Amino acid sequence: MTDYRRLIALILEELVAAGAVAPARCECHGFTYECCPERVRGVMDAGASRLGLHAHEGGVGDVASSIDHTLLKPDATADDIDTLCREAAEWTFATVCVNPTWVARAAARLRGTGVGVCSVVGFPLGATTPDVKQYEARRAIFDGATEIDMVLNVGALKSGDVRLVSDDIRAVVSACAERGVVSKVILETALLTDEEKVTACTLAKAAGADFVKTSTGFGPGGATAGDVALMRRVVGAEMGVKASGGVRDLQQVKAMVAAGATRIGASAGVRIVKESRGEMAPAGRASGY
Amino acid sequence: MTDYRRLIALILEELVAAGAVAPARCECHGFTYECCPERVRGVMDAGASRLGLHAHEGGVGDVASSIDHTLLKPDATADDIDTLCREAAEWTFATVCVNPTWVARAAARLRGTGVGVCSVVGFPLGATTPDVKQYEARRAIFDGATEIDMVLNVGALKSGDVRLVSDDIRAVVSACAERGVVSKVILETALLTDEEKVTACTLAKAAGADFVKTSTGFGPGGATAGDVALMRRVVGAEMGVKASGGVRDLQQVKAMVAAGATRIGASAGVRIVKESRGEMAPAGRASGY
Repeated sequence: MTDYRRLIALILEELVAAGAVAPARCECHGFTYECCPERVRGVMDAGASRLGLHAHEGGVGDVASSIDHTLLKPDATADDIDTLCREAAEWTFATVCVNPTWVARAAARLRGTGVGVCSVVGFPLGATTPDVKQYEARRAIFDGATEIDMVLNVGALKSGDVRLVSDDIRAVVSACAERGVVSKVILETALLTDEEKVTACTLAKAAGADFVKTSTGFGPGGATAGDVALMRRVVGAEMGVKASGGVRDLQQVKAMVAAGATRIGASAGVRIVKESRGEMAPAGRASGY
Repeated sequence: MTDYRRLIALILEELVAAGAVAPARCECHGFTYECCPERVRGVMDAGASRLGLHAHEGGVGDVASSIDHTLLKPDATADDIDTLCREAAEWTFATVCVNPTWVARAAARLRGTGVGVCSVVGFPLGATTPDVKQYEARRAIFDGATEIDMVLNVGALKSGDVRLVSDDIRAVVSACAERGVVSKVILETALLTDEEKVTACTLAKAAGADFVKTSTGFGPGGATAGDVALMRRVVGAEMGVKASGGVRDLQQVKAMVAAGATRIGASAGVRIVKESRGEMAPAGRASGY
């Protein structure tokens, strides 16, 4: 029987290495390995106190108001969007984050609730031209978007074309600035080297963006505390950092905030807020969830 | 040792069921299960003779000229695009299929070669507004695109909003028609019921699109012979059907063509054409490939 266990362990190791299955949680914190603070070198800055998570641990308002309640699946329906908006109004999330086709509907549903509408531009590949991204941003703003999350041009960054990367960000940031709309630049960190992450943060800051954001949720990986800490270090205290992609429970939210995140993108926002109130067992440990 | 084999077989079964690893090939044809003609109910129409695969089996020109040589990864670099264009010119593929940000570069590289430039619109989620898709199509055409593959609004289709689905397709098809550019409508079949596939094909045909196309390559599944046969049945003989997503070897190309495909989207075009010339063992059986 010991031989069987050894064999299974070896197979699992290979599968994790090949990216075919998710890695186990770390023993020190119970976080997924990517989120384990032990992996985070360098600053664990003051992000946590910014969100009040340390001061008001479990304070539901603080957690909810830092979450973009997100539904970006291409097959989301009008009913799904309506549910998302109802939940966002009930729990007072920062925004709902939806694809451009749903912005007008979400804005109508959320009028008067204080919940914003966030939409995405050049999403999720970031591989269209600056004028198309600017047009898409203007259209979403026209429809009622109060925040715009754009994907930077990853291919241009990897080709060393920083001028195009910069022009692309500026095209969207300027359209947002015209209407007082919050702009976020998605790096898709899982595709970038650390050097490229630093370059991207530098260009986003220089362009006047309001936030840098880790991930689309459609790439090969999501937010890690290490990336959030690196991004916070580069952009300094005055910009926002949004952690998104694979953030599914309160423990992960805390890890991201501890690393410097000021906004969380998550589709599991209701579960996270309930967990912060002690109403629900953490994800992965609640049976049948 | 037999026990070990049984254990491995059980683990693999579980992993295939969970979608964590690719399924084995069928025993009848050696195709991946999704492409096995036994799965294809209904017409196996005259698609094969259309491409000359039966008449000129192994005729490299015919296979190559039906392939859109495709590179849509967000982290593709300028060098990768140049390589794609060189290969396309060498093997005389129908087009290169690239993201909008690379259209101008690809068009410059391919001038005078007879190879077209295909680009994508609203890609890969299809969840932006009709005017944004139209703008993106016009920009790509301005940059030199000769074919446009648009993603339909999957969420609108699933919400029963056929008017929006139709308006969305027409916005792009009309921009293409203005300049004699070929238009293709991507269904993302893996997200649709058979009834939704029929509705989508009907609307694409009514809007005057030139092709319907199965998949983006970024969704939960790619082209299947069953879907190609269904789409061919709905659109009739005069429209094109493009099979894309997961088509990696000559056997799969033949299965798609037998089911009614007239164009293939593939990133493995060079390997497929070499295989058709007998220069290379089929994918998955060549060691170290």
